[in-house]
Amino acid sequence: MAKDRALKIAIAGLGTVGVGVVKILTQHAELMGARAGQAIEIIAISARDRSRNRGVDLTSYSWSDNLVDLAAIEDVDIIVELVGGSDGPALTLARTALAAGKSFVTANKALIAVHGRELAALAEKTGATLRFEAAVAGGIPILKSLAEGLAGNHISGLYGILNGTCNYILTRMEREGLSFGEVLADAQRLGYAEADPSFDIDGIDTAHKTAILAALAFGTAPSMDMTIEGIRNIAPVDIDYAKELGYRIKLLGVARQTEEGVETSVHPAMVPLAAPLAKVMDALNAVVVQGDHVGETVYTGAGAGEGPTASAVVADIIDIARGNSYPAFGVPTDALKDLPAMPPGQHKGTFYVRLRVEDASGVMADITAVLARENVSIESMLQRGMAPGGGVYIILTTHLTAEAAVSSTLKHFTKLECVLETPTMIRIEAF
Amino acid sequence: MAKDRALKIAIAGLGTVGVGVVKILTQHAELMGARAGQAIEIIAISARDRSRNRGVDLTSYSWSDNLVDLAAIEDVDIIVELVGGSDGPALTLARTALAAGKSFVTANKALIAVHGRELAALAEKTGATLRFEAAVAGGIPILKSLAEGLAGNHISGLYGILNGTCNYILTRMEREGLSFGEVLADAQRLGYAEADPSFDIDGIDTAHKTAILAALAFGTAPSMDMTIEGIRNIAPVDIDYAKELGYRIKLLGVARQTEEGVETSVHPAMVPLAAPLAKVMDALNAVVVQGDHVGETVYTGAGAGEGPTASAVVADIIDIARGNSYPAFGVPTDALKDLPAMPPGQHKGTFYVRLRVEDASGVMADITAVLARENVSIESMLQRGMAPGGGVYIILTTHLTAEAAVSSTLKHFTKLECVLETPTMIRIEAF
Repeated sequence: MAKDRALKIAIAGLGTVGVGVVKILTQHAELMGARAGQAIEIIAISARDRSRNRGVDLTSYSWSDNLVDLAAIEDVDIIVELVGGSDGPALTLARTALAAGKSFVTANKALIAVHGRELAALAEKTGATLRFEAAVAGGIPILKSLAEGLAGNHISGLYGILNGTCNYILTRMEREGLSFGEVLADAQRLGYAEADPSFDIDGIDTAHKTAILAALAFGTAPSMDMTIEGIRNIAPVDIDYAKELGYRIKLLGVARQTEEGVETSVHPAMVPLAAPLAKVMDALNAVVVQGDHVGETVYTGAGAGEGPTASAVVADIIDIARGNSYPAFGVPTDALKDLPAMPPGQHKGTFYVRLRVEDASGVMADITAVLARENVSIESMLQRGMAPGGGVYIILTTHLTAEAAVSSTLKHFTKLECVLETPTMIRIEAF
Repeated sequence: MAKDRALKIAIAGLGTVGVGVVKILTQHAELMGARAGQAIEIIAISARDRSRNRGVDLTSYSWSDNLVDLAAIEDVDIIVELVGGSDGPALTLARTALAAGKSFVTANKALIAVHGRELAALAEKTGATLRFEAAVAGGIPILKSLAEGLAGNHISGLYGILNGTCNYILTRMEREGLSFGEVLADAQRLGYAEADPSFDIDGIDTAHKTAILAALAFGTAPSMDMTIEGIRNIAPVDIDYAKELGYRIKLLGVARQTEEGVETSVHPAMVPLAAPLAKVMDALNAVVVQGDHVGETVYTGAGAGEGPTASAVVADIIDIARGNSYPAFGVPTDALKDLPAMPPGQHKGTFYVRLRVEDASGVMADITAVLARENVSIESMLQRGMAPGGGVYIILTTHLTAEAAVSSTLKHFTKLECVLETPTMIRIEAF
């Protein structure tokens, strides 16, 4: 069974994840070789700074200053790309490696979300294998579960907490009663959030991951054509009212097949406290998948970090060694479906709306008049105490309605003189 | 990429799971074929009762009255065994099929737990593939996650709620305050528990599954050499006190690598209310896996039933079609490790002990004298109200101690005149 020849690896990028991969493959060399059916040998590496001490011995690997050169090393079987970025060197390396028939393993969600179809087609053409388990939810084997373990199902939908930074911020806002800005600043100080946190907190990172999950779940090419909303506008008052209403606010990546088309989006959502995703706290990630035969399965674990991400990269390497070489999105690219996307605003659901209004007579009448005109039916309405900054908060939850109707209502609220700030709307997820 | 020739399947056993497999492969024929890279065609079936209406059209399949005959059909690629039982026809079929070089997919946990090593070796010899995802935790792809998704990790331990019937009984005992016997009788009436429920409630089913999980996690052959304890002795008072102490009682399958050897066991345990497994209610299954790089990942879903189990069987079929053919326990059988088992009683932990004693003076002195003699140190002691049947309950929790010391203490308690029934001891799990 075991092959005499070692599987030869080149690694582009030696940040924490790259160093983690080197650690696993050297510390567990015998175990990994037994699982792979052949020894796994790193032969070449490339990173920006050759002199930096990374805490691992890199002296036995050949070093390329230009990472794209790795694809030209003849006996390399697999290129591991841990550089990041949807374009630039990572894309060039992916194209060069796959065109040369070398398998390609990456943790780069942006690259796959944006160029996944092209790269998958290239891999098919040359017989190379393209894998990216580490790109979504770190060490949780969610892509393998979707593409392989749940392959006996038609997948109708999935819901994920896919960004540890956002979940960490929301968790601390709830536990400590702090504002978004306060927790973000603290997270940046502690190194849990980037100096430029926009990719995380504005939902772009979650969108890349959701695009990949949707592609594997539905057998489509990944697409970033989705509405994306982050957590900047979540206020402590929303978190308090969520709890009072029986919910917890989470940033979700959602993909589901509906009669109106495939709905893919990233948005903060009120999740029922009893739902599995409501219990996922701190920097953990989790994904709920709904299949027609298996029902609902849930996958939880660390979504980032050296160990989890590196372990997913190594799992992909072992998979390729074992010959598990089906197409990158589960079916050949020419069999990927071109499912219609649900038009924006068509989502039907219930919504939470927060208004800050003047504490004056006649205000409620103005608000209810708008609701009546827009035909938005109200499930509950709360008003209590004073809002910071003046006025009072009014919290509404709607009955089942189209998102477009609620958006239009909010625009009309904004024009009312009694409304003191742009209203906030948060989806209530019924799963 | 797609192969012209269809993959040909024979199914032995047409109970609910077999019928589920037929449904998936016929209703989703195109989708399954696209994922498998070739059409999947059922060509032969075998079951006891040819005339029974199973709600699916079986007329186009050849029928064998003797299931072992399926292995002799020349163009069958995969035999699917859904008959059950560790020995008898299932074993004969497995041996015959694998010896003939046909791949073998089964949901039969007893077969794999008892004969896994032999069958894996046979598969290796003939180049056939042996898969059994459906044998553990139904539709949750936990075996694939262990053997493939987490392959980049040294697995130190795992904890599973693996029997839906037991979890259902414990859930109803807690929610409705009923006794074990009352809920069991009702579950049997509703068809949720077998007429002979022993395999479930005495932990044997969980033990089969734990043996398989341990084999895949640690790279050993499956072994039923473990202590097995079911849930018959759990009383409502234990459930009440568990809650008071911050725990919930679950039947766990546990496998961990310790300095004293591999510990594999099935036992009811007190699980901290905040732990993921404490939140798994009703008939759900869940497994927590601890890897050195990935940390803790958790997998939750339906552990039984037509749809979930059948979807796992179909996933195995698709895997084999795709050529994912590594050895059944992750490494070749001659590379399976022979790890020493931890001797019974060596488990170190904390324990809950329930005593029913006479409500008389001097009782506490007798009990504490035994504890002192056995060197078992007590963390807490509760006594409250009257016990049903007379006397009072005393509830103890211990500090860290060896299981053997607590067992010995219980034997001495039993000899005390003031002790009115055999004491109960439940492990407290600290994970």
